[in-house]
Amino acid sequence: MEWKGRDVISVRDFSKGDIEFVLKVAERLEGELKEKGSLNYAAGKILATLFFEPSTRTRLSFESAMHCLGGSVIGFSSAASTSVRKGESLADTVRTVEQYSDVIVIRHPMEGAARLAAEVTEIPVINAGDGSNQHPTQTLLDLYTIKRTFGRIDGLSIGLLGDLKYGRTVHSLAQALALYDVELHLISPELLRMPGHIVEELRDRVPVHETTDLEGAVPELDVLYVTRIQRERFPDEQEYLKVKGSYQVNLRLLRKAKENLKVMHPLPRVDEIHPEVDGTEHALYFRQVFSGVPVRMALLGLTLGVI
Amino acid sequence: MEWKGRDVISVRDFSKGDIEFVLKVAERLEGELKEKGSLNYAAGKILATLFFEPSTRTRLSFESAMHCLGGSVIGFSSAASTSVRKGESLADTVRTVEQYSDVIVIRHPMEGAARLAAEVTEIPVINAGDGSNQHPTQTLLDLYTIKRTFGRIDGLSIGLLGDLKYGRTVHSLAQALALYDVELHLISPELLRMPGHIVEELRDRVPVHETTDLEGAVPELDVLYVTRIQRERFPDEQEYLKVKGSYQVNLRLLRKAKENLKVMHPLPRVDEIHPEVDGTEHALYFRQVFSGVPVRMALLGLTLGVI
Amino acid sequence: MEWKGRDVISVRDFSKGDIEFVLKVAERLEGELKEKGSLNYAAGKILATLFFEPSTRTRLSFESAMHCLGGSVIGFSSAASTSVRKGESLADTVRTVEQYSDVIVIRHPMEGAARLAAEVTEIPVINAGDGSNQHPTQTLLDLYTIKRTFGRIDGLSIGLLGDLKYGRTVHSLAQALALYDVELHLISPELLRMPGHIVEELRDRVPVHETTDLEGAVPELDVLYVTRIQRERFPDEQEYLKVKGSYQVNLRLLRKAKENLKVMHPLPRVDEIHPEVDGTEHALYFRQVFSGVPVRMALLGLTLGVI
Repeated sequence: MEWKGRDVISVRDFSKGDIEFVLKVAERLEGELKEKGSLNYAAGKILATLFFEPSTRTRLSFESAMHCLGGSVIGFSSAASTSVRKGESLADTVRTVEQYSDVIVIRHPMEGAARLAAEVTEIPVINAGDGSNQHPTQTLLDLYTIKRTFGRIDGLSIGLLGDLKYGRTVHSLAQALALYDVELHLISPELLRMPGHIVEELRDRVPVHETTDLEGAVPELDVLYVTRIQRERFPDEQEYLKVKGSYQVNLRLLRKAKENLKVMHPLPRVDEIHPEVDGTEHALYFRQVFSGVPVRMALLGLTLGVI
Repeated sequence: MEWKGRDVISVRDFSKGDIEFVLKVAERLEGELKEKGSLNYAAGKILATLFFEPSTRTRLSFESAMHCLGGSVIGFSSAASTSVRKGESLADTVRTVEQYSDVIVIRHPMEGAARLAAEVTEIPVINAGDGSNQHPTQTLLDLYTIKRTFGRIDGLSIGLLGDLKYGRTVHSLAQALALYDVELHLISPELLRMPGHIVEELRDRVPVHETTDLEGAVPELDVLYVTRIQRERFPDEQEYLKVKGSYQVNLRLLRKAKENLKVMHPLPRVDEIHPEVDGTEHALYFRQVFSGVPVRMALLGLTLGVI
Repeated sequence: MEWKGRDVISVRDFSKGDIEFVLKVAERLEGELKEKGSLNYAAGKILATLFFEPSTRTRLSFESAMHCLGGSVIGFSSAASTSVRKGESLADTVRTVEQYSDVIVIRHPMEGAARLAAEVTEIPVINAGDGSNQHPTQTLLDLYTIKRTFGRIDGLSIGLLGDLKYGRTVHSLAQALALYDVELHLISPELLRMPGHIVEELRDRVPVHETTDLEGAVPELDVLYVTRIQRERFPDEQEYLKVKGSYQVNLRLLRKAKENLKVMHPLPRVDEIHPEVDGTEHALYFRQVFSGVPVRMALLGLTLGVI
């Protein structure tokens, strides 16, 4: 597997071996950075962050990762200040930016944008989210967080909670988890169940339990992965409020959980997790944010061919 | 006094000893930078600049300071491109950014925002202005400018001109100056006098003269610190125009001043200081801008624990 | 010729010797960068990019160039987040930024803005476009691209196509080309011919052919420099559509060209060049984008006095 020059567009392009390798490199880099304070692998290299849609979290995480590798960053954080306004095609924009940089990270509202960018350029392109389609680095950092916390992914019982119908990053995560020896609990309102064909695909590999009952599922879990439920998914406001209330993760709910249950969330959250959980041992979501840095360092370093 | 990890939220948290120490470190760093061209104290460290409100001056000054220390910078310059739009709380935003950085500089329209940010994070937080409340690094750079120019703060006669009622950064400056052996002249329209309780507090420490008569006060002064008067403070347009005219610092006024009088202004100015003053020896306001860099280098370096 | 501290406002301020020198330095730096991977000439130096008007291409190119020299970058990418909104004059803004940086790159919608900025500051100012007036680094990178590709500029037959009336950067390019031993073909619709006084000036130095017939001119050319024609220049939509159609560079047209013809474009393009040209040996426009980096490295390094 040649990593230098490789694009990172979808987790589905990654074998289990690829994933394991990225996680191992991330762990090594996290240790090195902690020990030495600063690294120099990407000295003289330039990352271009092209965010056609705003995203503080993902952009800052990539920029931090590049700086931690000793590299530099150029880019923009919204389409407003770009030549897109002058009618330039996405292909021309990325081919232009390619001339100024060594690796491109792109976020774009249009599904398939990252794939297109990768096709027209020769330097590596990393997808930081293309519409509601793929967000592969989120999946990798989720896996990394679980592995760093439990020392393994195999053998865990993992619940995915919230909008499992439209949240395609949850689809990616579920598919990646199914490469391991896990048990999956899909917890959602009836209206927002995971699409049947994905559930079938998961069942071919691992045990899958579907339920609408969060309280009933919680005692089984090692990890509860929470996602936002959007009001606009519901035809009826009353339906939404009922779901919202019963799907909030709070101290009362966690009394039913294993002592070692970890709660994850890709953030930003609104009120799916009550702030009272933040101070408990269950809260893993800020540690999860941190994981973005070593995982993105690994991806930048590998695709640049400098580590 | 442990500086490493300390937050910088309000000048009122600083003893005179603290202030003197920061000024001394700033002076040392200014000298070192001049001599060596580049420093390396903050190599591998990352500053996150979170500007929920625009401010070129303050943001660029902090970024310049961090680069001068050899560190890196990530951040955003307006709330528009952040997850705030998705309903995320300030606490979650800063706890997220904390995972990507070693020190946070925050500007926020809401009073108390910087204090809140400091409370929920473990890395140092520096307040770059929270609403009309505090702007401690401005006060420190003002003191630094005076000390570098006159070699001392003690013994000086200092006039504060303009809106002394609402301009809380002038309150901070006055309170900090009152730690020294100075004479204060508070020069403002009747409507915009400094609040009584602050004047009382100042009088407990130093001689204070209140006046509406700029021309009368000028001959006494070593420093004239000018601030903007905003039209909307006046119920009557005519009142505003009268004040505006009589409070403009120009060559005619300066003919009455000591030869060595220095005029300061936190900038941006509109027309409180006539551009004809810029070329004179009295103008200290661009040198004052420059002072922001060594003072912020000192604060970044000290709170990061690298100097 | 003292380069350190020099402003770069208009190509007209440059002698042919100056231009040749910049191109030579750019070529040397391009080679050094390729060989060593990273350079350190501008270590400790800070570039401030002041973009009062958005321009991804130019801004990212300058930022990339500064990073390639080992320096740091601060700045803003639109006027929205600046103190301009508070009524600050351009002179005050640049004098402020001067305190934080070692060199300023400015783009401003107002003609003459860069010249004004240069006049009020002591550090070097580089014009990255002031309204429709000057964009000197574009002209220099155009010349560099030609020279790198053909090994020379002398002896070439160069066509300038499109809006030759209003596009003042084409005027700059034509004037700079006329310093060499070239033959110029000015190809435009009747309505958008190059102004008479510029044509006269060019004719004093080099052979000039004016035509509306692109197909007729193409076989003569070594370089075809394409620019956008804007719809709003035409009083009559039908006129525009006719021109637009006949002035598109596509494979059919290029069948008439010399094998070695190179097509250039300052980008962004809309549809003046069909994407089918991109994959051919004729397409030089992305290589032209790349040229921005070494040329701007040369200008930054020379004016900073570090190379």
